[in-house]
Amino acid sequence: MDKIKLSHGGGGIDSRNLIDSIVAILGNPILNSLEDSAILKFPHEKLAFTTDGFVVKPIFFPGGDIGKLAVCGTINDLSVMGARPLALSLSLIVEEGFSKTDLEQILYSIKETAGDVPIVTGDTKVVERGSADGIFITTTGVGAQLINAKPSASRIEPGDFFIVSGSIGRHGAAIMAKREELGFSSELVSDVANLSSMLVPIFDKFGEDIKTCRDVTRGGLAAIISELSHSSDVGVEIHEERIPVDADVSGICAALGIDPLTLACEGRVLLAVKPEIADAVVLMLSSTEHGTKSSIIGLATKDHKRKTYLITEIGGSRILEPPAGELLPRIC
Amino acid sequence: MDKIKLSHGGGGIDSRNLIDSIVAILGNPILNSLEDSAILKFPHEKLAFTTDGFVVKPIFFPGGDIGKLAVCGTINDLSVMGARPLALSLSLIVEEGFSKTDLEQILYSIKETAGDVPIVTGDTKVVERGSADGIFITTTGVGAQLINAKPSASRIEPGDFFIVSGSIGRHGAAIMAKREELGFSSELVSDVANLSSMLVPIFDKFGEDIKTCRDVTRGGLAAIISELSHSSDVGVEIHEERIPVDADVSGICAALGIDPLTLACEGRVLLAVKPEIADAVVLMLSSTEHGTKSSIIGLATKDHKRKTYLITEIGGSRILEPPAGELLPRIC
Repeated sequence: MDKIKLSHGGGGIDSRNLIDSIVAILGNPILNSLEDSAILKFPHEKLAFTTDGFVVKPIFFPGGDIGKLAVCGTINDLSVMGARPLALSLSLIVEEGFSKTDLEQILYSIKETAGDVPIVTGDTKVVERGSADGIFITTTGVGAQLINAKPSASRIEPGDFFIVSGSIGRHGAAIMAKREELGFSSELVSDVANLSSMLVPIFDKFGEDIKTCRDVTRGGLAAIISELSHSSDVGVEIHEERIPVDADVSGICAALGIDPLTLACEGRVLLAVKPEIADAVVLMLSSTEHGTKSSIIGLATKDHKRKTYLITEIGGSRILEPPAGELLPRIC
Repeated sequence: MDKIKLSHGGGGIDSRNLIDSIVAILGNPILNSLEDSAILKFPHEKLAFTTDGFVVKPIFFPGGDIGKLAVCGTINDLSVMGARPLALSLSLIVEEGFSKTDLEQILYSIKETAGDVPIVTGDTKVVERGSADGIFITTTGVGAQLINAKPSASRIEPGDFFIVSGSIGRHGAAIMAKREELGFSSELVSDVANLSSMLVPIFDKFGEDIKTCRDVTRGGLAAIISELSHSSDVGVEIHEERIPVDADVSGICAALGIDPLTLACEGRVLLAVKPEIADAVVLMLSSTEHGTKSSIIGLATKDHKRKTYLITEIGGSRILEPPAGELLPRIC
């Protein structure tokens, strides 16, 4: 039987066997102890703590799967706060009838993506057929924030530069292309990536001159910039031609009438930094695997607070609105 | 419109409005900052970290709801490890069409149950109608383990006493009674409770003489005792007449042919302690709201390792097996 049964979630012998098989893949001394909480030494001052649920559809897509997405999303949420990821928890909600082989593949993907960040505690629930769509994953992460890291959505000042770490919208475009109903045959690959090794050294080097750092997920660059301009009470000017968008992504966007600025990424960040370090940050990002296309895209202004002006290639400008209405559901 | 829409999960304006309404209920300075990770001061040595997903059906039941259950479950998983709960994260997976009024009621329940433990970070996803069953919640907790607390499933030695903190099986029985298909009219109330104020002082006072402490959830007392006997490689003898079971619970169990020892609780723990402190532990538990019926129920033995003998009221004995097969699904 290659299927998850309801009894795998009941707390009896089948549950124990399922947990044993999960632990066999993800195992480490803390997880193996199967206590009700993991106990971690924490000789640091500042604890970073973040959670995300993942419901992506389809669960396997070019460049990743729901497991890789969950680990990257959570590790990135720690990393953008200037925190070294220390450990993850993993909560699975699985539909009765889900393939054990698929579950195993997702677990191996989780293990590989997490690298040296251990999964130290977890939980598995099973719901009846039709009460969930395959598998949902919630990962939670704890990390140690670097002493000098002080990123905050409210610290941006007029004059600060905005930097994006790579070409945008690939994840959203890859999911759209993969969904059969759209009938695309493209194998556009998601940008999903674990960014801790790119970001932690940036915070280590530039400290509080990194004013804020956000991973560009649901709602895309348009949503994040809007949020930041509100939180910091500044205006924003972005130069459209400086925003990296790959040709395959803009192709799909043109075909579907979607603005790539509203598409989710899962391996890109937006930083706001002091202007004097902006070039050095781009240089450092560019030398990393996932930062090769990093680019200064604009700056914060004293004028037109809480509004973002997008300056187009031909020199015109339009206000960039946060996305509204029904965006692409279940992108992450 | 009193319904959750897909756009509430998309990352645009509707998402922001939903998040604002959640934060308005649960708010505190850390959550309000809406950063990608919460940052907490942690001037302690040992970090306790635990996660649980909740899929209980029905989501409102006598004595609680999925929100209260989630908070209690996570706080209790910290508390049984001798850790003071410091903060929680909250991940919601909501079905399109779910009632906003119900969501609000669940959030108020979460806030009330958590008491002075803040919800510091969270995430909300929305899936299409039919892709989830109403709402699923994953809560994760961080806490500071007391220096002298060293509970572990593997520390039980022959001679140690087992104590249960109250009457067992109420949560499982309440859920069964509530499910319409069973046609019970009883208003049997779940035992779901936040046990931190009961347990943390026990660890504070008795330190490492508390060998282990487990909350009795899925699989009931039968599953937990079996797990502990395996982890510590001891035998167990339990005296049936010393296990508190309320009359309304045993009534339902008799009617349905279910063993109350396999029913989940959500506000009861099993402790294994050094024999010389057992009476003092019971005395201390008995003085608390949720420990009035606490009782020494048996002890660990050198003989019949990994087997639990249940000594019946008439003096006979039978082996208590861990529950097998399809137990009550979605009990938590």
